[in-house]
Amino acid sequence: LQRQHEAELQGFVNSLHPADIAFILESLPKTERQMIWRLVSAAFDADVLLEVSDWVRESLLEAMNRQDIMAATSEMDADELADLAPDLPPDIVTEVQKGLTVEERARLIEAMGYPDDSVGGIMDFEMVRVREDVSLEVVHRYLRRLPELPDHTDQIFVVDRQDKLLGTLSLSALLVNEPEIEVRDVMGTDYLSLSPLDTDSDAANAFERYDLISAPVVDGIGRLIGRVTIGEVVDVIREDSDEQALSRAGMQEEDIFAPVAMALRNRAPWLMLNLCTASIASFVASRFEDTVSTIVMLAFLMSIVAGIGGNSGNQTMTLIIRALAVGRVTGQNLWALIKRELLVTFLVGLMGSIVAAGFSWGISRSLPIALVMMAAMIANMLVGACVGVLVPMTRARFGKDPALGSSVLLTFATDSLGFLIFLGLATIFLI
Amino acid sequence: LQRQHEAELQGFVNSLHPADIAFILESLPKTERQMIWRLVSAAFDADVLLEVSDWVRESLLEAMNRQDIMAATSEMDADELADLAPDLPPDIVTEVQKGLTVEERARLIEAMGYPDDSVGGIMDFEMVRVREDVSLEVVHRYLRRLPELPDHTDQIFVVDRQDKLLGTLSLSALLVNEPEIEVRDVMGTDYLSLSPLDTDSDAANAFERYDLISAPVVDGIGRLIGRVTIGEVVDVIREDSDEQALSRAGMQEEDIFAPVAMALRNRAPWLMLNLCTASIASFVASRFEDTVSTIVMLAFLMSIVAGIGGNSGNQTMTLIIRALAVGRVTGQNLWALIKRELLVTFLVGLMGSIVAAGFSWGISRSLPIALVMMAAMIANMLVGACVGVLVPMTRARFGKDPALGSSVLLTFATDSLGFLIFLGLATIFLI
Repeated sequence: LQRQHEAELQGFVNSLHPADIAFILESLPKTERQMIWRLVSAAFDADVLLEVSDWVRESLLEAMNRQDIMAATSEMDADELADLAPDLPPDIVTEVQKGLTVEERARLIEAMGYPDDSVGGIMDFEMVRVREDVSLEVVHRYLRRLPELPDHTDQIFVVDRQDKLLGTLSLSALLVNEPEIEVRDVMGTDYLSLSPLDTDSDAANAFERYDLISAPVVDGIGRLIGRVTIGEVVDVIREDSDEQALSRAGMQEEDIFAPVAMALRNRAPWLMLNLCTASIASFVASRFEDTVSTIVMLAFLMSIVAGIGGNSGNQTMTLIIRALAVGRVTGQNLWALIKRELLVTFLVGLMGSIVAAGFSWGISRSLPIALVMMAAMIANMLVGACVGVLVPMTRARFGKDPALGSSVLLTFATDSLGFLIFLGLATIFLI
Repeated sequence: LQRQHEAELQGFVNSLHPADIAFILESLPKTERQMIWRLVSAAFDADVLLEVSDWVRESLLEAMNRQDIMAATSEMDADELADLAPDLPPDIVTEVQKGLTVEERARLIEAMGYPDDSVGGIMDFEMVRVREDVSLEVVHRYLRRLPELPDHTDQIFVVDRQDKLLGTLSLSALLVNEPEIEVRDVMGTDYLSLSPLDTDSDAANAFERYDLISAPVVDGIGRLIGRVTIGEVVDVIREDSDEQALSRAGMQEEDIFAPVAMALRNRAPWLMLNLCTASIASFVASRFEDTVSTIVMLAFLMSIVAGIGGNSGNQTMTLIIRALAVGRVTGQNLWALIKRELLVTFLVGLMGSIVAAGFSWGISRSLPIALVMMAAMIANMLVGACVGVLVPMTRARFGKDPALGSSVLLTFATDSLGFLIFLGLATIFLI
């Protein structure tokens, strides 16, 4: 019965699109994942391996023997191999390399040389190239000899004998023009080309802005060395946004079924950092022990001051990080931005502090406490606004990810300074 | 001189790609934006208007007179008009409608009927359709009569006389096969089709998973009514991720140069909500006034307990929201997820609470206080983990955006319960 059940499951799994198999594998705990993986037909191995996230691929490779891995990798293109290589046992990589043609081996080595987050890291080598002095009829005949066009082919690249890129021939131009016309008369020469060392995020921004499907990658002297397609770019956009969300919570990519040890390593550092900053803030506050023991109500109000400063600063910071990501903030409009954020924050703070003052009066029945609360809250929200603008901008200026770390610094500033301002004002005016 | 300067600027602006003009307009304060907009050649008006974000479009339309708007809109397709219509004065919409053909008017009304975030809201009507019983040669001849193919055409749709979709003919199949072959022999029949009422996020997930460039949209009885292209999908992916980042900070889309009044309306409600929850938490803590006035050090430690619970819960919540977005969390693995998060949180909490206990001992020189700190911190982190899993899942179950509002609830829970647990334990064991 068990076996019959398994056969059914196998039939079902192998009737799916490789991308769906990958999604199912990603959604399963490790044991079940490896069990299902064994049922997947060897013909899908390569596609599924390339499709799954990095953290899942490891556990899949673990469940495969040498022979299966060799079989799966032997079908892959150079750029696909380059993506997979870091996860493979080194001796398998060596062996796979031996099976490649000289040209493919050169491409593999080239692709492996570029950083993961560069255009070189996401480009592929499957391109159709033609000369400029042939007629469209000749291009048509040439294409008919191919088994199929490479995925995401919306244009053909026009190169000279030295492989220098001269223009691009869109399939649209190829299809709507008469066959007698020459390539050079209908090719586009006003195209966007990428350098292999551009970042993948820059490439994604360009694809998004100009609605591209593919773009040529050229080297320093204008030779065509690869192309980037929208398929890779969509993954980059999704990964960038995932990373940003995770990094603001102090995490990296984590499988919801990853081993507990891995989750600990992922989460502990950031929590420990937060614990330290909270302890420092708490230490700052504890310097006002005498003040707080005289007026205990201050103890309950000080966390409101700290919290609202953090929340307000977080709004400013979110806006700035987003504007930085699309390149909308520069050194030139920095001052205008700070002034605007301070004004907006002051006005929201004024409204909020009236409510907070009312609450303070309600639990303390003291007008002076309410007034100190009001002043401290507005001041701490202004602290939040300054930190919210300056920290991400400074990090971006030094080439660091503006999201990562910014929120720790923001909370640290609004907590410590919030306590300091509130208890300091209270010590001066109330004691 | 001023005028010469302006002429130069005009020449420069109009040499740019409409997408670049849109980007520049988005990056400028309102006055400068409207000044530059007046320099943009009327020929680009339509493209730029369609390219800019909603909040910028309003200010551009403000700066145009009736005639300019009519001229710009008269060039647009039905689906583009439908996007723009909500921002236009109603009498202009009526007038533009009069200038359309019967077919275009029907499309415009259809497109305007679908919600913004549905497939119907992002589809366009520019498709090439062919019959299944013709040869590829006939298709070629038909295409050569077009001025160009619609943007993002990677496939042609094969329909019958009733416009029922029978299959799709990829340009690749069209180009690599011999002209004598009939369409029906090379068309794909295993294609993904969308319904106009699917959400745009579902469409984006499908495009991402299957690496699509375009997909047909069919009605309930299988008739082809439109198509969705990767150009629109990339915008949806980017907007979804922007929206998520903003909504976690309690904001909506905001121009960094939007009028201050607009910014106030955008930010104040969420800050007020946070102020209320912080006040309630502070009120909960103030019920322990006697305990705190006996041991003042508790006042400085309680904010650490509350803060770390919120941070830890935020990590869990970020992970769950992300997993929910790609459909990886279901009712079925809920229990496994909660158990895992509780375990991970307990272990991180154990490590962290040892550090926190050390700090507590350091500033209070009291072992009992350190032990209460330890227990309260672990307990509050577990509260954060439960809220971090359950709140987004519950919101998603009821069809609400899991990100929006979840973080307010999380902070509320970890603050109030953090104070309650810590001061409660202190009252029981230390007083």
